[in-house]
Amino acid sequence: MEVAEQRSKVVEAYIQAFEDRNAEAVMALYADEATVEDPYGTEPIKGRDAIYAFYQKAMDLNARLSLDGPVRVAGDIAAFPFTVRVTVDGKRQQLEVIDTFRFDRQGKIIEMRAFWGPLNSQEI
Amino acid sequence: MEVAEQRSKVVEAYIQAFEDRNAEAVMALYADEATVEDPYGTEPIKGRDAIYAFYQKAMDLNARLSLDGPVRVAGDIAAFPFTVRVTVDGKRQQLEVIDTFRFDRQGKIIEMRAFWGPLNSQEI
Repeated sequence: MEVAEQRSKVVEAYIQAFEDRNAEAVMALYADEATVEDPYGTEPIKGRDAIYAFYQKAMDLNARLSLDGPVRVAGDIAAFPFTVRVTVDGKRQQLEVIDTFRFDRQGKIIEMRAFWGPLNSQEI
Repeated sequence: MEVAEQRSKVVEAYIQAFEDRNAEAVMALYADEATVEDPYGTEPIKGRDAIYAFYQKAMDLNARLSLDGPVRVAGDIAAFPFTVRVTVDGKRQQLEVIDTFRFDRQGKIIEMRAFWGPLNSQEI
C-alpha cells in the first residue's frame, strides 16, 4: 500500500475511533513525542497522558466528527476538512475544522494541528 | 473588521482573482518575501517573479477553482478546501486541494502551502 493510502487510512481510523469513543484507539495512532495544537496558534498539548485526557474530554462531551471531503496527503502531512457536532448546555453546535496530521517515519502522528476560529462555530 | 474576517476575505479575493485570470490581483495579496510550496513537500517557489509566473501558467491552462467549504482561520493561518478543474490534452481533470495561507503582520500572504497528492486527482 502506498504512503498516501496508508496516511488516508490513519485518518479514517481516527474518525472511526472517535465515533466509537475509543480514546485508546486514537492514542494508538500517535507517536510518543506527539503534540496537539487545537486550535493552531495556542499552546500545544504534549505527551501521551495530556493528549489522552484531551480526547477523553471531547468524547465525554459526545462530540461527533464527520469528514467533509477527501483526505489530502502531501509530503509527511495529511490534511482533511470535517465537522464536529456537539451539544453543550442543551445547545447543539457545529464547528467546521481542518486538521493536519504530520507523520513520523513509523507512520505515527507526531504533530496534530486543528484550524478553526470564531467564524467556524455556529448553533444548529 | 476582525482578523478572521479579513483573512477570509483575502481567500475570497484570491479565488475571485483566479476566476478573473488576473495574476496581478493574486500578487497584490502576497508579501514580497513570500514562498509558495505546491504541493507541500516540494521545493518552495520564492520571490514575486517566480510566484507570478507560477500563477500565470495555471491561468494559461484555464484552471478553475471552487471553494468546497468555509475558510478556517486560526492564529496567523487561513486553511480552505477547494477543487481545481482543468483540461489538459483534451482530458478534463479535477484535483482536490487544501491550501494554507500564513499571513504577515500587514495581512499579506507570506507562505502558501498546497496539500494534495496522487489520490486527489481524477479524470472527470
